[in-house]
Amino acid sequence: MSELTIWTYDWVPEAVWGFVRDLRLRWACEEAGLSYDVRTVPFDGRESNHLARQPFGQIPFLDDGEVKLFESGAGLLHLARKSETLMPLDPAGAAETLQWTLAALNSIEMVSVPWWFLTVTGAADNQLTGWMGKRLDQLEQVLSEREWLAAGRFTVADLLMADVLRVEKVRAFGDRPASEAYILRATDRPAFRKAQADQAALFKAADMKRRAI
Amino acid sequence: MSELTIWTYDWVPEAVWGFVRDLRLRWACEEAGLSYDVRTVPFDGRESNHLARQPFGQIPFLDDGEVKLFESGAGLLHLARKSETLMPLDPAGAAETLQWTLAALNSIEMVSVPWWFLTVTGAADNQLTGWMGKRLDQLEQVLSEREWLAAGRFTVADLLMADVLRVEKVRAFGDRPASEAYILRATDRPAFRKAQADQAALFKAADMKRRAI
Repeated sequence: MSELTIWTYDWVPEAVWGFVRDLRLRWACEEAGLSYDVRTVPFDGRESNHLARQPFGQIPFLDDGEVKLFESGAGLLHLARKSETLMPLDPAGAAETLQWTLAALNSIEMVSVPWWFLTVTGAADNQLTGWMGKRLDQLEQVLSEREWLAAGRFTVADLLMADVLRVEKVRAFGDRPASEAYILRATDRPAFRKAQADQAALFKAADMKRRAI
Repeated sequence: MSELTIWTYDWVPEAVWGFVRDLRLRWACEEAGLSYDVRTVPFDGRESNHLARQPFGQIPFLDDGEVKLFESGAGLLHLARKSETLMPLDPAGAAETLQWTLAALNSIEMVSVPWWFLTVTGAADNQLTGWMGKRLDQLEQVLSEREWLAAGRFTVADLLMADVLRVEKVRAFGDRPASEAYILRATDRPAFRKAQADQAALFKAADMKRRAI
């Protein structure tokens, strides 16, 4: 048994296979060569059945021996401290990686997730569209001048930013060639492909089992 | 001159005095007893005049000698590594603090800021109201059972969560006594009061100068 356990749901609808956030932690472990187990909590009743581990009823959460934590961003920063592959050791490189990891969560995803939510529940052109376009344009400018966000090489910040940007509706929002090339670069990495395939395999097996009942 | 420099705008409208995000970094430095300078970039032209330091045109950003970083959450986590006052040194306590810091940014603020934005540009009851209420209720449940979020004592996670929750419209959204008591506990700390008074003093002086021109 590995020290690291990534927790996810035991089933999700097919539409989100490959996009559930345990993928972020799987991807990080694959990049860093860290061995890990994957365990599940029930999707049905998710809003109340694991509140002791995740008070918002979501996944993923992570066990690292006695250390337990939720929030995919927190899990990523915790894993990043274990491997220079994910985050440089030098103070300037570490700070730059930290800054872009937080930017993915609080400058981009803070707009893209609510915007996505409004498109699902209402119109594609909604009150967050202007803000969304502005943020993605600003990021496009950055990505037009560099291959990876921090420290001149792939880090956990790219893993997270690419995962935020590759959401289908977000990716289809306007034409931003540097951002698109960045998503392709990141998702072409063997560690991403392995993580995505493993996630899909788990949910596909669960789905077949569920349909057979 | 201090090693630490917190950058903010040289002026902001009076309505946001005491709520500009450099306050998060000031508060953290005050809690930890870290000396710091405050410097400014122009508010006018902010969307293009300091993109080299903050690609989204925002503040704050932080200098720590040769290390430079933006994103208030990244600045807080960087400062937290300097002082046990902000984040415990033991792995479990550090992980719990990290998790709640990220939860403030990506589980609460990811809803509360867009919800706030929709209330400013449209109706108070909008498409994010249901999600907003659910998240605040889940957090209320947590705060009804503990005084501080992580490690049994005040940490940087509380500094950030309280700053997210004390935004006037967010604070007035429903009646949640545990959350309200938590905001009062956090904002009654001398370090918060000092940070808030110092920010207000800077912006008030800038405003008087601006009006005198």
